[in-house]
Amino acid sequence: MIYYEDLIPGRRFHTASHTISEDEIIQFARQFDPQPFHTDPQAAKASVFDGLAASGWHTSSLTMSLVTSCELKNVANGLIGMGIDKMRWPRPTRPGDTLSAQIEVLEQKASTSQPDFGVVRLRWTTHNQQQQIVMQLETAIWVARRPTQTAAE
Amino acid sequence: MIYYEDLIPGRRFHTASHTISEDEIIQFARQFDPQPFHTDPQAAKASVFDGLAASGWHTSSLTMSLVTSCELKNVANGLIGMGIDKMRWPRPTRPGDTLSAQIEVLEQKASTSQPDFGVVRLRWTTHNQQQQIVMQLETAIWVARRPTQTAAE
Repeated sequence: MIYYEDLIPGRRFHTASHTISEDEIIQFARQFDPQPFHTDPQAAKASVFDGLAASGWHTSSLTMSLVTSCELKNVANGLIGMGIDKMRWPRPTRPGDTLSAQIEVLEQKASTSQPDFGVVRLRWTTHNQQQQIVMQLETAIWVARRPTQTAAE
Repeated sequence: MIYYEDLIPGRRFHTASHTISEDEIIQFARQFDPQPFHTDPQAAKASVFDGLAASGWHTSSLTMSLVTSCELKNVANGLIGMGIDKMRWPRPTRPGDTLSAQIEVLEQKASTSQPDFGVVRLRWTTHNQQQQIVMQLETAIWVARRPTQTAAE
């Protein structure tokens, strides 16, 4: 189990990787972001993306799936995001790209209202197989503190 | 067609609505956010969510699909988000919730490097059927300026 106390600023976690197919890109986009540069390889060539590109929401959701299967999945009360800031997609995700993410602890802050919890700010960075950044964000998660051990009587 | 010049601060757009099913919530979460409070109605009852809740990434992606089918889909060069800030989920999306979104133009800024484009900052707010906010974010989009008309010779 990972508790608030374990998430020291500077600590890093690394996820596994996932290779995204053209089919996955098109299927996600048809459901959630049906714009031609995400759904139609031909039309995408004539767009600002110069070829099929995954919806940014797909890149971000896929990163979530990578994060939930890395060591951070052991956070005691689950990975509960309070919000997202500074989410950027410096370059598009392309069919065949292999994505993986790194999570860095930025800051810890104990809750004043709920002494059993704290807020931990993280930066997620998602790279492709060429180590180019395809997504970055900052998030704050709500994390349980390690239970105090009562001395044995 | 909607151009930069049409996106005056204060202008609002309203999307259609979508009713989300338990199956949709579980299917999205299994793929992108497989935590018990998003995938298992029984386990979710014992969690901080006190019942099944959609992944925040699902609520946000669903909002994208609503935005791409509202009047804003007519933005000349497509809806190209440069980034997302201040994304929050003040309350969870539940099975059976009917979501719709409102988009408000916050700010316009002409591009200094590319005179045919500008940046428009928008706030998206997603409500459930009880008019409670389930998601809010701010985004900047990259928008073509209206082409200058050349006088006929």
